[in-house]
Amino acid sequence: MNKIYFTPGPSALYFSVEQHIKYAIKHGITSISHRSKKFEAIFKEAEERSRSLLNLPDNYKLVFTSSATEIWEKMTDSLIEEKSLHMVNGAFSKKFYSVARNLGKDARQIEAEWGKLPDYKTVTDNHYEVIGVTHNETSTGVVTPLENIYQLKENNPESLVVIDAVSSLPIVNIDFAKVDSVYASVQKAFGLPAGLGAWFINDKTEAKARLMKEKGLLRDTYHNILSFIDQAENYQTPSTPNVLGIFLFSQVIQDMLNKGMKQIRNDSVYKSAIMYNMLDQHDVLRPFVKEQVLRSETIIVVDSGDRTNDLIKYLSNHKMIVGGGYGKMKGKQIRIANFPTHSREQFEMLTDLIEKFE
Amino acid sequence: MNKIYFTPGPSALYFSVEQHIKYAIKHGITSISHRSKKFEAIFKEAEERSRSLLNLPDNYKLVFTSSATEIWEKMTDSLIEEKSLHMVNGAFSKKFYSVARNLGKDARQIEAEWGKLPDYKTVTDNHYEVIGVTHNETSTGVVTPLENIYQLKENNPESLVVIDAVSSLPIVNIDFAKVDSVYASVQKAFGLPAGLGAWFINDKTEAKARLMKEKGLLRDTYHNILSFIDQAENYQTPSTPNVLGIFLFSQVIQDMLNKGMKQIRNDSVYKSAIMYNMLDQHDVLRPFVKEQVLRSETIIVVDSGDRTNDLIKYLSNHKMIVGGGYGKMKGKQIRIANFPTHSREQFEMLTDLIEKFE
Repeated sequence: MNKIYFTPGPSALYFSVEQHIKYAIKHGITSISHRSKKFEAIFKEAEERSRSLLNLPDNYKLVFTSSATEIWEKMTDSLIEEKSLHMVNGAFSKKFYSVARNLGKDARQIEAEWGKLPDYKTVTDNHYEVIGVTHNETSTGVVTPLENIYQLKENNPESLVVIDAVSSLPIVNIDFAKVDSVYASVQKAFGLPAGLGAWFINDKTEAKARLMKEKGLLRDTYHNILSFIDQAENYQTPSTPNVLGIFLFSQVIQDMLNKGMKQIRNDSVYKSAIMYNMLDQHDVLRPFVKEQVLRSETIIVVDSGDRTNDLIKYLSNHKMIVGGGYGKMKGKQIRIANFPTHSREQFEMLTDLIEKFE
Repeated sequence: MNKIYFTPGPSALYFSVEQHIKYAIKHGITSISHRSKKFEAIFKEAEERSRSLLNLPDNYKLVFTSSATEIWEKMTDSLIEEKSLHMVNGAFSKKFYSVARNLGKDARQIEAEWGKLPDYKTVTDNHYEVIGVTHNETSTGVVTPLENIYQLKENNPESLVVIDAVSSLPIVNIDFAKVDSVYASVQKAFGLPAGLGAWFINDKTEAKARLMKEKGLLRDTYHNILSFIDQAENYQTPSTPNVLGIFLFSQVIQDMLNKGMKQIRNDSVYKSAIMYNMLDQHDVLRPFVKEQVLRSETIIVVDSGDRTNDLIKYLSNHKMIVGGGYGKMKGKQIRIANFPTHSREQFEMLTDLIEKFE
């Protein structure tokens, strides 16, 4: 048996990826110019399939970046004139805050301890140009309930509410009409090789960037929100993109459409339920996130204390590779990805194995 | 017979790439974390192999970006306080100049018409912090003789001389000690899928970025020259990189080392010689670059006038895919890549076919 990667990203490839790569090489996808009609057709198909998969409203556009980190930087440059707010409860929500601070913005944070949620109710006055929310904190396994996010937008209709769904898209069934921008990394739940970010941007977000440009505040870099959007109008990119990555993104989305998101989401619920149920009754291990409603389906974080290395080794001996704790939790926790590529059977095997760990 | 891509990049994959991708998938390279020891080992190997392939001096470091375009932007942000000079003779040399202008620098250019070389002799006074040279203009097929570049550095020892070798590395046998920074795209002569830039940076270039930081002039972005260098010290990257791309880069370099750069460069000289010789005697076609010493080995540009579309179609019917003219030369020229993946036999076939075109 080959190793199965339950790491939180990069994770196991979606099961069809190897076939799609073979096809891409055989049919010269890796050799086409990104200025060609063929590339435009690939981008267009990726955009249309994403639209279908995610029920993307008409006022949304898709652009591709090289990573989610790049998106934090470009949001800061393109959308924040002065003030942003960041809902922080882990390492990745903190990073967007840090990017904005480092680039000289008056960025504020509402911070919760790891494993909990920041207080959403106090943010009500449209005071911030951008409010950054991390839907699924990959470092802590805390999911932000969508109701909190929608309420935040209702309470701050003038602010741009931008959603980091790096490790939850496309499992999360987000109502894009109730937010302004959503972004993901392809090496998480989409099951692709690392090296591509997908960014969904609504017209209000675009309008803010155009206003920044009119005011002479938009850095005229090759990559900024407008260069991405203007090129995407013709299914083009401002610089040479990861063409193979975009092709694979499109193919995997088609595979997911064929399987049906309802089935994929049902599987996801089942897999996370058996894992959390087992962990709640485990003799040695505990789920890190105590509150049920905050437990991420896609990133399951386990308190494993001084047994962490034993647990990782035990699972590895059974060809099951899980992630370690993130940052300050390294050596104290493990993280388990529950992505569409992980089958019910694989998850049952993993759950059984962890159950027997003592 | 499958199509053979002689396009100027992305081009045909290096012949071993498909095997390396299979290996990468089978051995979980696409699933490893970029914060893992395994990734560090891949980066370290890529760095050591590059060092060997290019005779890289000890005062040079290697960092990976998402594209060469990103390198223009990061050089502008990290190295130019006020003044830069750009030797411009085509679309890509012009782009670095435009990036620097757009970001508010006092960028100057010395411009030559397409097919010619700018005047290097007049630049002598260390007046510029950075001088950008395009070794091999992918848009025009003009190569800048290395003597001109070395002389430029001798005449401006205080300036940073940075070399765009996007479509000539590793064929060009550059003496890195005589310049300050060299960068390439992997989808050209390295024969890899698009989506990765390789940037070789010497200590003088790094020192300039550190000085910019001390002066408070360095934008504190996730990607800047220092964030790349500081992370690369530990074979790490500031954000999630194209891990598969870096792995393939390393493997292809090892294949090139095994074959020997002497052999690869001899093949390159032979292939370009038979093509240019044939073109010089052709009834309908002409090499665009008249001066022999300026003719690029790796990008051969052909004046095909109103026969361009016929020529492209004729070659395509024989499964040979060449590039069109760039920008204003679209529909008037073709561009032929002569990269290490193109065998002598393939090039002989292509040359024969073009010879018969009438």
